[in-house]
Amino acid sequence: MIGRLNHVAIVVPDIEAAANLYRNTFGATVSAAKDQPAHGVTTVFVRLDNTAIELLHPLGEDSPVARFLERNPSGGVHHVCYEVEDIYAARDKLKADGMRVLGDGEPKIGAHDKPILFLHPKDTNGTLVELEQV
Amino acid sequence: MIGRLNHVAIVVPDIEAAANLYRNTFGATVSAAKDQPAHGVTTVFVRLDNTAIELLHPLGEDSPVARFLERNPSGGVHHVCYEVEDIYAARDKLKADGMRVLGDGEPKIGAHDKPILFLHPKDTNGTLVELEQV
Repeated sequence: MIGRLNHVAIVVPDIEAAANLYRNTFGATVSAAKDQPAHGVTTVFVRLDNTAIELLHPLGEDSPVARFLERNPSGGVHHVCYEVEDIYAARDKLKADGMRVLGDGEPKIGAHDKPILFLHPKDTNGTLVELEQV
Repeated sequence: MIGRLNHVAIVVPDIEAAANLYRNTFGATVSAAKDQPAHGVTTVFVRLDNTAIELLHPLGEDSPVARFLERNPSGGVHHVCYEVEDIYAARDKLKADGMRVLGDGEPKIGAHDKPILFLHPKDTNGTLVELEQV
């Protein structure tokens, strides 16, 4: 079911400092910071040779990553995103296997304009897993 | 400097259950569990199309991941590993930029029989970063 690792998302306390770390110290290809008000985050993409690192910083009052940053003021890995071909088939298989899909169980359109869903981290070794249909 | 994402390492409370999750529910290609006494871990590799997930469970009395599992009993992402061509050149550049290399600063031979080092997570957004020379 799962294909490529689409990205690893890291919440960071200072998005420009984090972008500079990856750009200047690690020598990676790094996008400009982009505010995504609909998703409550500012994002920077680090393009590696085989996948991407998504740097996230809270944006606005109801950011889904604000509490994570409060609990982890230095930042940390927020989630990993695996690609799937058919998000509904994936969801149905996962639910049949007893996995909990977060929210109302319906895929949403994510920050990459693709259908996504998240699995309950208690079902996935304490690791928040995003599935994205590509 | 950094090239591919070699792997994401996830500490898990039950290595066989985690292997079954990735093999049976996620439908990925999953290795057999392997005890690595020299490194204090049991490992399972999940082969994705573009990278790998390394499942880790403590082995023995002095496991480097035992305390992580105590603090995170459900498990969680332990580190991300980026590939570099020259671990000494990478280390010298990182140290010149003020990054802290864990341990005595000398690369060690890791669980994949390649030279590795780890960076202080306070310098890398709360995310433990391993560099591996490939």
